[in-house]
Amino acid sequence: MALTVLFAAGPGYWDRYAAPLRAAFDKAGIAAHLSEEAAPETVDYIVYAPSSSLQDFTPYTRTKAVLNLWAGVERIVGNPTLTQPLCRMVDPALTEGMVEWVTGHTLRHHLWLDRYIVNSTREWDPTCPPLARERQVAMLGMGALGEACARALQALNFNVEGWSRSPKSVPGIPCHHGADGLRDVLAKADIVVTLLPKTPETENILNAGTIAGMKRGAVILNPGRGPLIDDTALLAALDNGQIGHATLDVFRVEPLPQDHPFWAHPRVTVTPHIAADTRPLTASMVIAENIRRGEAGEPFVNLVDRARGY
Amino acid sequence: MALTVLFAAGPGYWDRYAAPLRAAFDKAGIAAHLSEEAAPETVDYIVYAPSSSLQDFTPYTRTKAVLNLWAGVERIVGNPTLTQPLCRMVDPALTEGMVEWVTGHTLRHHLWLDRYIVNSTREWDPTCPPLARERQVAMLGMGALGEACARALQALNFNVEGWSRSPKSVPGIPCHHGADGLRDVLAKADIVVTLLPKTPETENILNAGTIAGMKRGAVILNPGRGPLIDDTALLAALDNGQIGHATLDVFRVEPLPQDHPFWAHPRVTVTPHIAADTRPLTASMVIAENIRRGEAGEPFVNLVDRARGY
Repeated sequence: MALTVLFAAGPGYWDRYAAPLRAAFDKAGIAAHLSEEAAPETVDYIVYAPSSSLQDFTPYTRTKAVLNLWAGVERIVGNPTLTQPLCRMVDPALTEGMVEWVTGHTLRHHLWLDRYIVNSTREWDPTCPPLARERQVAMLGMGALGEACARALQALNFNVEGWSRSPKSVPGIPCHHGADGLRDVLAKADIVVTLLPKTPETENILNAGTIAGMKRGAVILNPGRGPLIDDTALLAALDNGQIGHATLDVFRVEPLPQDHPFWAHPRVTVTPHIAADTRPLTASMVIAENIRRGEAGEPFVNLVDRARGY
Repeated sequence: MALTVLFAAGPGYWDRYAAPLRAAFDKAGIAAHLSEEAAPETVDYIVYAPSSSLQDFTPYTRTKAVLNLWAGVERIVGNPTLTQPLCRMVDPALTEGMVEWVTGHTLRHHLWLDRYIVNSTREWDPTCPPLARERQVAMLGMGALGEACARALQALNFNVEGWSRSPKSVPGIPCHHGADGLRDVLAKADIVVTLLPKTPETENILNAGTIAGMKRGAVILNPGRGPLIDDTALLAALDNGQIGHATLDVFRVEPLPQDHPFWAHPRVTVTPHIAADTRPLTASMVIAENIRRGEAGEPFVNLVDRARGY
């Protein structure tokens, strides 16, 4: 009998996802009715985005999983009506996009690209930048995205060390954890990348105190979550030179308000939440795989741990 | 008995190279007198740079090899008095620097970095750039540097195809050659990197005809040699939009004259011959290794083929 799959991510997503999802179901041998409306008690799976109008999961009594189209789940993980298994999106294309963004922005600062992109005085200064093997990168967050970025930078000879809240072992990459570990990785990093999930413990992890412990002139790249950084502390550190530059892709309010000081600050680069975008083709294949697993009695991939919040 | 090694690269180099060369000789177990002056008939090896005042090699009758500190040999390879074996510099640090420059500038264009670096209108446009796996790169020149750059871009998922004058087989990278092959790789490339040696056959390889066969709006990166590109043809193609951008590290005259149109062109980025710099520490180890080989009767590495000119 065909499964009922409710698409509850919203109309903007439906136009982009309906066809790729149906194609992915076909390819995975899943017989399913995919629609934007279904009687709650008939729904087997929900394809979801946290911006959806669906916020009360109580009537979805037979639903086997809520399959999120976003990597971030902080807007939904605390919803007390959501008792069904919740899966995050880990889209291979999203990882690729993130690796490209982090590598490109790391190299921009590493290679001093700005001085050549804008060079109105026609200065010819043949001083070479250091080699990547002379640069230290701190990767805050060693989940799937952080590890992929760390490996890409390591392949270019950057010295990369990871940090996460709880101990992690990642072959070939020195990993630190806890408050002492954070102090150590921040103290020696030329470039700090924040790729942590947003949880109560990671909010404002870069604040006046931790920023003061960084190497003077270090660069911050934040493609993770806006609230990881205390904006006021960052602006003060940019003003006094403690931080050399911040390239930010995520913000507490998006789109970033036109009067926000980040727009005008000469040491800030704003990118409009583009570091990692879910692509319908590959994301649909991930959704289909989780439905196949659910039906086969296999464990879901990317299942959210409610206690950790991601 | 100690070898006599003449340092004939010039005084600017002596200050940077004397100590690292002596350290490298010691480490390689080579007993040698290194100096800036020696009776020609006593010299075993010459450490050289093409800008040197030494241009007549006739009196160096016992010299076993001329060991160049530069990757490029075009200024010296045609010297009829130079009958001794000539070795190019292939410095691992030079390769690293080149890979970083090529990867960074490729990602700059791929990720549309400029629109975020300079964004005075505070535009928030969340359109993502394509993924690297949707971009095609042509690597013109598949020597040590070209292959290393091709592999680094391939590791980031760029579709890379190589081209060289004569057929080459490089595992995992489709390689083309000859005039037909050039037309094919240029026709589909979004980004073209020129890393060919300068020889009579490669001069002006990017000219009005080959540029006209490129994809409209393609980007050119030239970290190889200035004369690979016909400057007038490039400027015309930039003006009419056939070429979207050119990032150039090497020029027919260096430093690039202040009144050269490249400086003012909005679609040209000038970098001051920094893509690949020889680093004394690693280059000295390469020189020492070649002397060790010469003394052990082993073939030199990076020996120049006079017929090919590099």
